[in-house]
Amino acid sequence: MKGFVIKGNICYSKSSNEICITSNGYAVCENGLCAGVYNKLPENYKNFPIYDYTDQIIIPGFTDLHVHAPQYAFRGLGMDLELISWLDVHAFTEEAKYNNIEYADKAYSIFTEDLLKSATTRACIFATIHAPATILLMEKLEASGIKAFVGKTNMDRNSPAYLCEENAAHTLCNTEKWIIDSGKFKNIKPILTPRFIPACSDELMENLSVLQKKYSLPVQSHLSENLGEIEWVKELCPDTKFYGEAYDKYGMFGNNCKTIMAHCIHSGEEEIALMKKQNVFVAHCPESNTNLSSGIAPVRTYLNLGIKTGLGSDIAAGSTLSIFKAMAMAIQCSKLRWRLIDQSLAPLNFEEAFYIASKGGGEFFGNVGSFEKGYEFDAVVIDDLALKHPQELDVKERLERLIYLAEDRNITAKFVNGKKLF
Amino acid sequence: MKGFVIKGNICYSKSSNEICITSNGYAVCENGLCAGVYNKLPENYKNFPIYDYTDQIIIPGFTDLHVHAPQYAFRGLGMDLELISWLDVHAFTEEAKYNNIEYADKAYSIFTEDLLKSATTRACIFATIHAPATILLMEKLEASGIKAFVGKTNMDRNSPAYLCEENAAHTLCNTEKWIIDSGKFKNIKPILTPRFIPACSDELMENLSVLQKKYSLPVQSHLSENLGEIEWVKELCPDTKFYGEAYDKYGMFGNNCKTIMAHCIHSGEEEIALMKKQNVFVAHCPESNTNLSSGIAPVRTYLNLGIKTGLGSDIAAGSTLSIFKAMAMAIQCSKLRWRLIDQSLAPLNFEEAFYIASKGGGEFFGNVGSFEKGYEFDAVVIDDLALKHPQELDVKERLERLIYLAEDRNITAKFVNGKKLF
Repeated sequence: MKGFVIKGNICYSKSSNEICITSNGYAVCENGLCAGVYNKLPENYKNFPIYDYTDQIIIPGFTDLHVHAPQYAFRGLGMDLELISWLDVHAFTEEAKYNNIEYADKAYSIFTEDLLKSATTRACIFATIHAPATILLMEKLEASGIKAFVGKTNMDRNSPAYLCEENAAHTLCNTEKWIIDSGKFKNIKPILTPRFIPACSDELMENLSVLQKKYSLPVQSHLSENLGEIEWVKELCPDTKFYGEAYDKYGMFGNNCKTIMAHCIHSGEEEIALMKKQNVFVAHCPESNTNLSSGIAPVRTYLNLGIKTGLGSDIAAGSTLSIFKAMAMAIQCSKLRWRLIDQSLAPLNFEEAFYIASKGGGEFFGNVGSFEKGYEFDAVVIDDLALKHPQELDVKERLERLIYLAEDRNITAKFVNGKKLF
Repeated sequence: MKGFVIKGNICYSKSSNEICITSNGYAVCENGLCAGVYNKLPENYKNFPIYDYTDQIIIPGFTDLHVHAPQYAFRGLGMDLELISWLDVHAFTEEAKYNNIEYADKAYSIFTEDLLKSATTRACIFATIHAPATILLMEKLEASGIKAFVGKTNMDRNSPAYLCEENAAHTLCNTEKWIIDSGKFKNIKPILTPRFIPACSDELMENLSVLQKKYSLPVQSHLSENLGEIEWVKELCPDTKFYGEAYDKYGMFGNNCKTIMAHCIHSGEEEIALMKKQNVFVAHCPESNTNLSSGIAPVRTYLNLGIKTGLGSDIAAGSTLSIFKAMAMAIQCSKLRWRLIDQSLAPLNFEEAFYIASKGGGEFFGNVGSFEKGYEFDAVVIDDLALKHPQELDVKERLERLIYLAEDRNITAKFVNGKKLF
């Protein structure tokens, strides 16, 4: 017998406008996959053990599609700068410390512990340029039971000397060794991570392109986040019509290369068309985009076009690992965008935010982020008893409220791919 | 001996750009007032008892300058509408329930318990039109030790029949009785609360004006929140040049009548000039203004002009009582306003947000919201040990982080006007 059952108020998205709710129902896990959600437990599962979370809320875990683990140390700090100055003053100086494996050990332990406590079951994570510290992070995550892609970042130009690999050949060699070393992990996989075009020379991009093909690796990076950054990319890549082309010319912008691009705030029509055509995933990071005064991404456009979209905490330009908070901010920012910029794009609603947080981002991991049959069995159980109310609330209302009110302390259990983490 | 000392990392604003920090210092309370903050405890206070919060963060409490207690029940729910529809669908239907004193008892107990746990020491609160429920709320707040102004709301037009007082004479009679009944409270004071111009007839406003003068009461209401609302006020008050005049013509817009106006998002030059001239307090409610797609208030303008400004949670258009969250949203919204509307108005920084949350809003209560000598001794103690970090952080950085990361569970003690609440 390789299965179990969890009982509670089971909530999951089928599509961006439909949340399925089974009140005090049963979700069955068989061999790590969801075998179905039932009002009444079918006979053939009667001998499965039951975890009883009656009256609690059960959701598929969330996917954090964009998070910088080494920046977790300074979350909530240094919020008064725009992107490029913020990188120089805060992000790069902190990331340089991960050359010291003892510091990395301490910092990545804190990151992993807090990620484990959160409602996130899957994550796509930037580390630093340092391969040993990146492997250490992967070890900690593997031990936690979370499933993640982790990238040793690559950067060889326009970066401070203390956070720059010697040259493109050196970064190729380091990166390939790291990829091979990563082979030992079961749940944690490597992802190529050119930091962003301004920090990556043509030669570096060519070398990464070779590795991408050789190992069939996915790619994550940043795209069209800040107006100054976009101008800079234009100067650095005079042969490209738009930012995304600077990745695409090296075969690292979707198609046969599974790709996440974070932000996509100021993407133009051509860039958006290419993202759509080549199935690039957008990691929407509303808190980060607000904190760094970057702007508000047109998520409604991406949803309308069927562009694959998930949410990112973008620690530490975002202050919290909470994807609940990212959902709230995604809705809130979409309202301000509607009010202040473009009333042709309706704000996101609660169903849509829940969808992109779970099934939308989860798709990067395959069949993840839903309790539909055959999906990997990820589940997060939330006890909202502490959020008192004098009136009756139905399960859907209780779920909606959590977007704004949930705290990690409300999470009582977590499963990833059929394994109970706590 | 009528005093005590608290020891810890004491942080308070002197002005909007200066936070005073005394690391593991001593704040002395004498007869309910702050007698000073010291690095070393002076001899003459050596016999005062000491509450030792070494290494914890101590701040003056925050003032919530605008909150609807009866709406707390549906916080985090029903966020997909703009102001007027939202009032009809969510706010008015919930408020009608407070005709039932048992429901009010249950709901106001939850509100008061959660307000007590928060970092808020002072609040300006809207109740409903129901005098008995409003008195019940005042009793609960009085028992909690929080200091607050509470208003029985007045509304007699353009409101559903189930939430409308019979006529202006009736509301006058009810309101005067409520004012007299409120006389029994020590820490909780009545504040006149015409809901907003669309819901208040001329006769009602005249009657309230009589009460205002007779009892020298302060006033709270709403101003220039939503574009549709502003147009409506223009239609309803064809003799006024701008929204604020509709209050001012009844003597309820500052000057000899201490006044809080919530929102002030779309106030024009003349309105702003009158607010400044007559010392009207602005209750800035950034989360509410975002959730209801109302817009972003020009707080920088208000600070530049020296207009008195505080923060409001505006439950339940805002989802949380946390004024930390209101600070974060004030900074975040000011950045989006800068990016999307007007680059001549710099975003708020952390020092400014902390100032308006504490001393800015506190001024409505007199010398409140600071540890300067002579200020009423309000204090909130926060243990941030759970917010782990691998690097050294100084007290100012730890304070800055709290704006984004603090949760009520981190609050370990609270004092109001020299009284320890927990």
